[in-house]
Amino acid sequence: MDFFFQPQGIALIGATPNPLKGGNAILRNLLKGFKGAIYPVNPRYETIEGVRCWPSVTALPDPLDLAIVFVPAPHVPDIIRQCAARGIRGVMIESSGFAEAGPQGAARQAELAAIARETGIRLWGPNCMGLVDAHAGYVFSFVSPAIWDDGLIPGKVSLVVQSGLLSGGFLIDLATHGTAGISKVCSVGNKVDVNECDLLAYLLADPATEAVGLYLEAIPEGRRFLELCRRSAKPIVVLKGGKSPGGAAAARSHTASMAGNGAVVSGALAQVGVVEATGFKQMMDFCRTLAEYPRVPATVRGRVAILTYSGGSGIVSADGLDALGVPLARLADDTLAEIKQVFPDWMPVSNPVDLWPAVEQHGAQKVFSAAARAVLADPGVDALFIHAFAGGFALEVDLTEIAAEARRRGKPVICWLLGAREPSRRFQTTTQALGIPVLREIPRAVECIKTIFTPRAVSTPPPADNPPPASVAARLRSARGALDEHRSKTILAECGIPVVAECLVATLAAATAAAEKWGYPVVLKGLVPGAVHKTEQGLVRLGIASAAALEAAFRDLDAAMGAKGEILLQRMVHGQPELIAGALRDPQFGPCVMCGLGGTLAEILGDATFAVAPLSREDALSLVGRLKTRQLIDGFRGTPPVDRAALADILVRLGRLMAAFPDIREIDINPLICVNGRPLAVDASIILAD
Amino acid sequence: MDFFFQPQGIALIGATPNPLKGGNAILRNLLKGFKGAIYPVNPRYETIEGVRCWPSVTALPDPLDLAIVFVPAPHVPDIIRQCAARGIRGVMIESSGFAEAGPQGAARQAELAAIARETGIRLWGPNCMGLVDAHAGYVFSFVSPAIWDDGLIPGKVSLVVQSGLLSGGFLIDLATHGTAGISKVCSVGNKVDVNECDLLAYLLADPATEAVGLYLEAIPEGRRFLELCRRSAKPIVVLKGGKSPGGAAAARSHTASMAGNGAVVSGALAQVGVVEATGFKQMMDFCRTLAEYPRVPATVRGRVAILTYSGGSGIVSADGLDALGVPLARLADDTLAEIKQVFPDWMPVSNPVDLWPAVEQHGAQKVFSAAARAVLADPGVDALFIHAFAGGFALEVDLTEIAAEARRRGKPVICWLLGAREPSRRFQTTTQALGIPVLREIPRAVECIKTIFTPRAVSTPPPADNPPPASVAARLRSARGALDEHRSKTILAECGIPVVAECLVATLAAATAAAEKWGYPVVLKGLVPGAVHKTEQGLVRLGIASAAALEAAFRDLDAAMGAKGEILLQRMVHGQPELIAGALRDPQFGPCVMCGLGGTLAEILGDATFAVAPLSREDALSLVGRLKTRQLIDGFRGTPPVDRAALADILVRLGRLMAAFPDIREIDINPLICVNGRPLAVDASIILAD
Repeated sequence: MDFFFQPQGIALIGATPNPLKGGNAILRNLLKGFKGAIYPVNPRYETIEGVRCWPSVTALPDPLDLAIVFVPAPHVPDIIRQCAARGIRGVMIESSGFAEAGPQGAARQAELAAIARETGIRLWGPNCMGLVDAHAGYVFSFVSPAIWDDGLIPGKVSLVVQSGLLSGGFLIDLATHGTAGISKVCSVGNKVDVNECDLLAYLLADPATEAVGLYLEAIPEGRRFLELCRRSAKPIVVLKGGKSPGGAAAARSHTASMAGNGAVVSGALAQVGVVEATGFKQMMDFCRTLAEYPRVPATVRGRVAILTYSGGSGIVSADGLDALGVPLARLADDTLAEIKQVFPDWMPVSNPVDLWPAVEQHGAQKVFSAAARAVLADPGVDALFIHAFAGGFALEVDLTEIAAEARRRGKPVICWLLGAREPSRRFQTTTQALGIPVLREIPRAVECIKTIFTPRAVSTPPPADNPPPASVAARLRSARGALDEHRSKTILAECGIPVVAECLVATLAAATAAAEKWGYPVVLKGLVPGAVHKTEQGLVRLGIASAAALEAAFRDLDAAMGAKGEILLQRMVHGQPELIAGALRDPQFGPCVMCGLGGTLAEILGDATFAVAPLSREDALSLVGRLKTRQLIDGFRGTPPVDRAALADILVRLGRLMAAFPDIREIDINPLICVNGRPLAVDASIILAD
Repeated sequence: MDFFFQPQGIALIGATPNPLKGGNAILRNLLKGFKGAIYPVNPRYETIEGVRCWPSVTALPDPLDLAIVFVPAPHVPDIIRQCAARGIRGVMIESSGFAEAGPQGAARQAELAAIARETGIRLWGPNCMGLVDAHAGYVFSFVSPAIWDDGLIPGKVSLVVQSGLLSGGFLIDLATHGTAGISKVCSVGNKVDVNECDLLAYLLADPATEAVGLYLEAIPEGRRFLELCRRSAKPIVVLKGGKSPGGAAAARSHTASMAGNGAVVSGALAQVGVVEATGFKQMMDFCRTLAEYPRVPATVRGRVAILTYSGGSGIVSADGLDALGVPLARLADDTLAEIKQVFPDWMPVSNPVDLWPAVEQHGAQKVFSAAARAVLADPGVDALFIHAFAGGFALEVDLTEIAAEARRRGKPVICWLLGAREPSRRFQTTTQALGIPVLREIPRAVECIKTIFTPRAVSTPPPADNPPPASVAARLRSARGALDEHRSKTILAECGIPVVAECLVATLAAATAAAEKWGYPVVLKGLVPGAVHKTEQGLVRLGIASAAALEAAFRDLDAAMGAKGEILLQRMVHGQPELIAGALRDPQFGPCVMCGLGGTLAEILGDATFAVAPLSREDALSLVGRLKTRQLIDGFRGTPPVDRAALADILVRLGRLMAAFPDIREIDINPLICVNGRPLAVDASIILAD
């Protein structure tokens, strides 16, 4: 992929002297920053922008490894063939009019795909804005050359954006507001060949990239994407469009791609340590924060010390941290005593530390530096949240020394800034160059702090051992469609998942014998082929407490079903909490495992989490740990804690079953009742392909 | 209060020619905008800034109704006395060194309070930044005169900010970024006399104010504040600092004021239609949005049409709306057909409407205008969310016509803007002058749209009739501390709250007789004075199903209690959902009523809402409607719906009881079990003052 990122020579097909056209903007952008050979191609001109112009690709001399194409869509396939013939290794196709533009465009895009397959030439785009590299000064894009005026400030964050115009617009916004240094911005467009996985792989190996942000509408190579994320040492932030029904419909019409189930996407991303964002600027803010503080040990709790010039801002910050569950640091006595030295006598020191009265006495620089030194030295402080003001009140502080001290101690510093427009921009640029992310709203700054200290899953690939036993394969081979409760649980039991004691009872005598063995109360259920809602159809009798009641229930069910079904006798179990577990096959990620809380309230809350199968034990434990109602799992108000190891084991086994048998569409265990903390499958269904 | 906002003449005590001092900044700010008489007072100078300077307040001529004081704190009390003697009606004290500055400062502030009481002079501050009025051009503040350079753009939003420096800093940030027009910013400081209620009352009557935002750490005149909000036709947005434990502790140390219980504050504010914010800029964004769209009829659902130039932005917007429960509009066939006219043939129209391919064909202005006209005319569209780009791609659109059309149709328009720095600022300023709020992040824009369409409670004062019966007063008169379950429920029953059938049973015969009358199963409870946790102490026997079991349980309990207690027999009831209801006395707002869902999961969720008592029926219904789990109240998965009228009636009666008897500290009904939808108090406790 180096020929895309560090080409020796670039042919620009579609170069033009018309300053209003994109083909001119690309050339001017190349001339401003690209150091290699530049070959404008256009048979109608001798020179453009003072550079020799060439009549065709075929005639171009070496060095030449990349072409940028910006000609009307109908001409593009021929041009690509010429590029391949000339030995050009990669082409960025920035023209639109392909899959995004109706059936004719789709046909054209298919032609491009065929050419790439035949010739081995790599194609980036079409319908994209290309590449911007702020370190190298490369703008391989028709974005307005005005972007140079406001300075392409180099930084540590690289972005991959599926949407073409969005990437250009967002880049202009970021660059001209001058506040967020970027490394590379890649606009992938229609992804006829090069896709987000190719780019992510490149960026993860790129020394100039410390964090990667991606806006994606679909992740068709889902497994490859996850594997890249799993192995990445660099923080990855994803804004996934189309997670809601309305957004998914829009994504389908935008890129004709399936957006997938939002909860599954979130689960899969969390499983491999990806941070999710819900907005473009939030994504960038998370990226630039994590680029500075990429991996804090999971044991660090994130206790925050706040230094402020305004009591009100300190209070709102403390409220914001509390709302996100980030702890406020309790300052040590030594720390308090040290800060007290710059405080007025009457003023007690507490966290948030309101420095204003001290600033009035000693000046902002001295007071902020002294207080920062003190809190950074405090072993009870994991991070510093510093409030800054630029452009008035003699409050502007140089944070160079504080940044150095924080780095020495390995403690993150985040800055919230208020101030006049120009001084704010200057302060933000200077301070960010010190490695301190500056945010303009307290809630966003607090979100960024939380992101630093949210342990990202370290996902290990699951061991390949312990496949489901051969008996399971035999049972599945002959079956189709929805299996009944008993057959489903038999398979689960053979996979090692604990299920409630139960047996099919052909006669009352058999039922009574089993009930005597287990003890009352018991449950009777009528299994009728095709009847999914047993309870609604009156085929379930709970709490049968005596032989007499068993006899009555048995005769009753038998009569209700006629000759159509079988009767299942179960031991009746009680326990809390009632969980659900299951598995499904996702179009992007393949087999996935789910866990959630049972019951109506949980259904209203929609509290269920997903992970991609097969799962490692850590994956399964982290799946459980992401439940909103996980407090219940740990035992609450007298309910015994759930045996997390046993629960994780069930989820791992579900994942193995799904991974081993592609014919299984869906597995549902509901309820999975915890009896003295041990989860037990009480009802279940396995659905196979028809 | 007019002398604060529209004075005829202003004395400035503490005027100085030193440009680094606040006393000079105030004078320059006055000279730049104030049209009335200006009297700098300082015995050491003849003139300052070219204006005649006066030796003392006493010597000043008419007109004179306001003084601004900026001298060291120890001199302030004497100055105030002189002002009162001179007949000055109001003083803004901008000096610090009072209650915020230790015991000596607090004593000084007490002296100011005494002077105000004695003389009737009104005092604003101390420790404040005074007043800025962007319409009049009045800056009665030591904020840097640089604020004028970037234009104090007049707007519709007035702010009241408790924190002094914050108000100044925030104002500079808002004004210099030039994007959010303000009307008046009032910095209230230590509130020795003039407080947020006085200012709110003034601003609600002020024709130049369309919406009010307040940052408050405490609301000591809680009832007066709520009454002002209740009567206001103008939207009010509050950012309440100190709602979390950490924030509350910080608020106590900042202004020595009780921040109160965060959930109670939220309930009280929601009850009177106040919108809450969690950050300063969010507060301002909500204010400027609601200033344009102050009150949408509650029947309008808020179905949003999205016009965008970027598929990706449309998708993220749809996801954002979905996450907040705001519906995406389903466009009518006519609308689709009309938009289709500017679309390329191959492209279907759907909402979000991605206009980019059409823009490429016809230009942005034509396409955006045509599409906006179409969706605004659609009866299925309640609001327009338009995406704009400034500074490139020939995408900039003049929204004048769209704004006019939207106003004609009474449909709100919200704009999200991406773009280069200077063009963005120009676009934002121009567009906001058209009455269209422009936001810089999609999630924030979506929050603002939600705020427009969130029905704000229309709270009516409760009718004064139906006080609790005289028998209740008699029972309460003799009691102290925690009442037992039976005595508590007797009082609730006398107030008209349905309680479970129960009676004290002195003998087994009495117990058996009652059980036979109601039918088994029954419950026995041992009431021991001072024993609060009956279940933990083994004093509760549930599900007694027969006379024999009753006898055993009775003897058992009797033995367990010895001679210390009484035995209570209850009918055993079952039902779903299990609610809780209660009441407490809040330091800021007085008696408050609470409702929530019972059970452990609800406890984990912390799902309980509050309202200030006495409650109107509407208050009670809206209290229930604010529950996160309100879906359960409406019947879910076979649970019958709760009789909302009966539930509201219980809450109203609880409120009346609290309001009528100040000796009641707390009432707790837990559980309030819904039997066939009718809530019934099954356990309860009333706690009186000791």
